[in-house]
Amino acid sequence: MKLQVTQENLSKALGHVSRVANSRGTLPILSNVLLKTVDNRLSIAATNLDIAITHYIGSKVAIEGAITVPARLMQDFVSSLPSGVIDLSLKENKLHISTDKYQSIINGVTAEDFPVMPAIAGGKQWKIAGKTLKTGLQQVVVAASSDEARPLLTGVLVHSHEGGLYIVATDSYRLAEKRLDTTKQEVSLLIPANALQDLLRILGDEDSDVVVTHDDQQVLFKVGDVELVTRLIEGKYPDYRKLIPKTFASSAILKRVDFVNITKVSSLFARESAGSVTINLETEPAQVSIRSIASQIGENTASANAEVTGDGVITLNSRYILDALNALNGDEATISFNGKLEPCLITDAKAKDYTHVIMPLKS
Amino acid sequence: MKLQVTQENLSKALGHVSRVANSRGTLPILSNVLLKTVDNRLSIAATNLDIAITHYIGSKVAIEGAITVPARLMQDFVSSLPSGVIDLSLKENKLHISTDKYQSIINGVTAEDFPVMPAIAGGKQWKIAGKTLKTGLQQVVVAASSDEARPLLTGVLVHSHEGGLYIVATDSYRLAEKRLDTTKQEVSLLIPANALQDLLRILGDEDSDVVVTHDDQQVLFKVGDVELVTRLIEGKYPDYRKLIPKTFASSAILKRVDFVNITKVSSLFARESAGSVTINLETEPAQVSIRSIASQIGENTASANAEVTGDGVITLNSRYILDALNALNGDEATISFNGKLEPCLITDAKAKDYTHVIMPLKS
Repeated sequence: MKLQVTQENLSKALGHVSRVANSRGTLPILSNVLLKTVDNRLSIAATNLDIAITHYIGSKVAIEGAITVPARLMQDFVSSLPSGVIDLSLKENKLHISTDKYQSIINGVTAEDFPVMPAIAGGKQWKIAGKTLKTGLQQVVVAASSDEARPLLTGVLVHSHEGGLYIVATDSYRLAEKRLDTTKQEVSLLIPANALQDLLRILGDEDSDVVVTHDDQQVLFKVGDVELVTRLIEGKYPDYRKLIPKTFASSAILKRVDFVNITKVSSLFARESAGSVTINLETEPAQVSIRSIASQIGENTASANAEVTGDGVITLNSRYILDALNALNGDEATISFNGKLEPCLITDAKAKDYTHVIMPLKS
Repeated sequence: MKLQVTQENLSKALGHVSRVANSRGTLPILSNVLLKTVDNRLSIAATNLDIAITHYIGSKVAIEGAITVPARLMQDFVSSLPSGVIDLSLKENKLHISTDKYQSIINGVTAEDFPVMPAIAGGKQWKIAGKTLKTGLQQVVVAASSDEARPLLTGVLVHSHEGGLYIVATDSYRLAEKRLDTTKQEVSLLIPANALQDLLRILGDEDSDVVVTHDDQQVLFKVGDVELVTRLIEGKYPDYRKLIPKTFASSAILKRVDFVNITKVSSLFARESAGSVTINLETEPAQVSIRSIASQIGENTASANAEVTGDGVITLNSRYILDALNALNGDEATISFNGKLEPCLITDAKAKDYTHVIMPLKS
């Protein structure tokens, strides 16, 4: 193997793929990245056996070849080099990396030992705008569970329903759903949330379409020169739609920044009670007030002007309120519920394509 | 106690003093801040018995008084409030804090239990420009030891010598000295480095003179409306001047940013050897090159153009080189030494008031 690449391209590619390489696993080679010439390009790939990311960059290839090297060292090293051309050449599993002023040798492990993700055979394929997917993921992934004992809920469901393409996640305490787009496809993919966190990082600097290809076991996202493959989670996702209330006894519209501030301040006095705060919708005066009490340290009441329809009280986890409010993009938020035992809805006051549901706490 | 302050002033004062309050100590009240009316001002104070910081802010005082409240809660709470006027009033050791939209009660502990630092009696007093002190501290504190088993070296020495005021720190592996100013005083203060870290934070936004008052046990720094008192370390500081070489067999001048870059890259290959890298000063071609070898992972050589006087080789800890280079302010750095067993000097190529010495490693 003998080739030239630019420091900028190689550093960016290593940044995208290296996070997947894991040095704490049982298989040491998984902490390496695979470098491999493919026609006149260099592919840089890493995998943790669940997720694989491959980034292709332009390259002047003199001799074809492949090698794996430690991901973290390679990333730290290349990102420290000055911008410009880098020469890579392989001599007996040692990767020689050189520029004008820097000469380095990194000991590699033969590429033959590197695991390959199975190919997606005869699957479906569709496209979605990168920006739409990115916004949707940012709004929804937060509600997925990190509890590996409930694998279904560590996934994010991308599915079609009555001509719409939806993305949804729930950890059973809260639920977030976004209508992404229209679709004519029949889609139902349960994708690990951590794979979508990696996808979000890749989407960070791409504004073009994302090509999605999937079969029953895997899904492939192609974003420009980057490909992310992940296994799908098997099993039947809960029928979440019946959890989302449609009519409400109490509802308030207020400035999102006000809602964030009064929740943050109240949460300081809710540390003893695991974040529990009590929200009061009042029509006279028209305001939303949040109250929290900590027997040891003190108590707090904070309020904000609001348009209120129907007085009501509900107790929620303040962290979940903040997560929901951070997922909204508009200036005004709506909070709506039916009594203190029913699910509480937090939405944007104007955009109706995003729904965030929080289950109440006992008060 | 009943008074009004602005959120901006109170939040800034709590930011300055709260870091000293420690919730992990044996004396619970030390995790509190003391709020106390003093004429038409409010003093906000915290102490860990070694260091005490007091910040005075303007206040409309209706009823005099004092109370202590948990520092972290108070700081988090006040910094979350909107800017504007805050009402504080005390009812039976409960501090009521209110604004238009926020009402809070924080349970306090009587101010009588709060420890008071002894006053400085009949000490010396002198002034120094805040900016001069700040730059000097930033350049020198890094070399102080954090090893409590060697208390002398956890201090920073501020002392007069032949009409100059100097500040110096060493952990016995490296030493940093800065000439701050001229002085007619006889000064010799050994000040805990962590107290000076706190002073640096306070100096962050002050450009005026700092008034320094000291007796044999304590030193007081007065920066605008903030006072920091710290105990002094007892004992005789080592006679460090004899460690600083005056003439050199090998010396090189190079761009500081180049020196930083080649050191950083080399340090990646020096993890196995605890940061040890070998520096080569060469006259033909005129360059400084740094070499590091890790038997497991590989090796690296990085070089930069330099003006070199006298070839030479020395092995140093790469972290210490980076600390020294970060402490310089100019564009060009000088490295000088006498063979590989003698102390190595790193200085600015132009400014001669700052000296950084690093002891070599065995190679």
